[in-house]
Amino acid sequence: MRALVFGQRVSFVEAYPDIEVGDGECLVRVHLAGICATDLEIAKGYMGFAGVLGHEFVGTVESGPRDWRGRRVVSEINCPCRKCDLCQAGLANHCRERTVVGISGRDGCFADQVAVPAENLHAVPEGISDEEAVFVEPLAAAYQVVRQCSIEARSRVAVVGTGRLGLLVAQVLAATGCRLVAVGRNPATLLFCEKKQIQPVSTRELVARQDHDVVVECTGSPEGLKIALAMLRPRGTLVLKSTYAAAAALDLAPVVVNEINVLGSRCGPFPDALDALARRQIDVSAMVSRTFRLERGVEALEAARSPDHIKILLRINSP
Amino acid sequence: MRALVFGQRVSFVEAYPDIEVGDGECLVRVHLAGICATDLEIAKGYMGFAGVLGHEFVGTVESGPRDWRGRRVVSEINCPCRKCDLCQAGLANHCRERTVVGISGRDGCFADQVAVPAENLHAVPEGISDEEAVFVEPLAAAYQVVRQCSIEARSRVAVVGTGRLGLLVAQVLAATGCRLVAVGRNPATLLFCEKKQIQPVSTRELVARQDHDVVVECTGSPEGLKIALAMLRPRGTLVLKSTYAAAAALDLAPVVVNEINVLGSRCGPFPDALDALARRQIDVSAMVSRTFRLERGVEALEAARSPDHIKILLRINSP
Repeated sequence: MRALVFGQRVSFVEAYPDIEVGDGECLVRVHLAGICATDLEIAKGYMGFAGVLGHEFVGTVESGPRDWRGRRVVSEINCPCRKCDLCQAGLANHCRERTVVGISGRDGCFADQVAVPAENLHAVPEGISDEEAVFVEPLAAAYQVVRQCSIEARSRVAVVGTGRLGLLVAQVLAATGCRLVAVGRNPATLLFCEKKQIQPVSTRELVARQDHDVVVECTGSPEGLKIALAMLRPRGTLVLKSTYAAAAALDLAPVVVNEINVLGSRCGPFPDALDALARRQIDVSAMVSRTFRLERGVEALEAARSPDHIKILLRINSP
Repeated sequence: MRALVFGQRVSFVEAYPDIEVGDGECLVRVHLAGICATDLEIAKGYMGFAGVLGHEFVGTVESGPRDWRGRRVVSEINCPCRKCDLCQAGLANHCRERTVVGISGRDGCFADQVAVPAENLHAVPEGISDEEAVFVEPLAAAYQVVRQCSIEARSRVAVVGTGRLGLLVAQVLAATGCRLVAVGRNPATLLFCEKKQIQPVSTRELVARQDHDVVVECTGSPEGLKIALAMLRPRGTLVLKSTYAAAAALDLAPVVVNEINVLGSRCGPFPDALDALARRQIDVSAMVSRTFRLERGVEALEAARSPDHIKILLRINSP
């Protein structure tokens, strides 16, 4: 099968070996896949991963348990052992022995086919297109923010970073009715915020005054972290939503003095994301900058690194 | 008056100018004062402070509002403006305009007298000696940990660092009945833990397995942070209890991947500390390594830096 593979570097492979499908797993024919910051970091060697890249996708089940065959699905990415102490404690997403689709110990979805445990699948309702469904994984991650910290209508909340993840997080937060600003550098994405009735603030005009209750850092950069801390009030909550692959580090003196609560935030609830898309609460279509064919995957990854683009998709098979 | 002063360096001054006492403030004659890690950092230039050092003390009110005169007291260290948005929001300890006794904008207690707002004072019950009362400020800081995060009997909790602050935190945590270990390097302080029925673990024998629900970092060192993260389970809470004056920084990749909750923790509730001392729940007396006269304050600070000592006190005036 065709696949976009990372070894020493990223390359398109015409004849990647067929995927082995484990017990209780489904083989999914991939329609469309999304590129996210984690893929870009992995392509630089983060996590020491080697294999097929990619973890955001929508596809159709080709083989596996009968209930699933022929269904259009999205898939959670953590594949737990269901046996270790963390699995037993209800923390399967943090399983000690887990593999993670396209990230750790398991081939990803930038390929004709991907194998995932049937338990990881969620059926996609008819009203949600492939172009929307491919956003379910990152949108679920955005919903994790409102699962982890309580946001009220009177809460002052800031999202730092108006890239692909920041725009999802901002839209999820906007739906809570909180007092929200989105801080970014890119005029195009700031305009996107404005259209969604989210107050945009350019980093050039920002006057940070340590007066936000919750700040969600979505840039993954030291500069973004600095802005986030400068905006956060004492006893406020700083949510770290990015992949910090480089040696991004947090200066701890202000964290202690201001008694800040730092919350790491990773994967999130798929049902919340599917529900929001079905109810048309979140606009993902407008975030797609370009769609590449799988054969041009190397070029697609390059495009995803550019600040001129928001979301880059890979068209892998027609539905 | 006599005072231990930090300018370019720490020096004992025989005739420091008399303290100005503001409206609503009391002048307190200091009996006994304690040296903590923050003092040591300030003496290295942290916070850019200049003036009389010290913020842990017990003394007798000499002048001020009539209700307080002649009473034996301890004092909270944050002096808020009571007007700014944070004061209005109930976060007076984080007041934007605050001064902090011996730390920021206000002379401290390593002197014959110290001025503090009457609102900051707490009367010391007769059953608590000066040698115990001088621990109220750091003990209150230890109680802040159990105020900020919920500890249950089944919680697995670790304290990293068995210095002056770690031993207070460990005793406070032990009183919750949780499953507690104290990790340290110093055989003497590990023995202290053992006597208090707190399971001691030498850093040399430690096998960290990411299986503690809460880890309280009390060393303020990069090594301590590393141990704390290695002991903490995914979705666990890392409490930062130390003064991180140097560029101590936290690697953020594991914070995000393991969805860790990092909690900065500073000053705490004085009533909890006074109550615990009155009920003899916390043993502070055994923590005193040496008591120096104020004149030998420079030497006392040196002694406080030594791992051979736990708590160093300064005897300033007889009661």
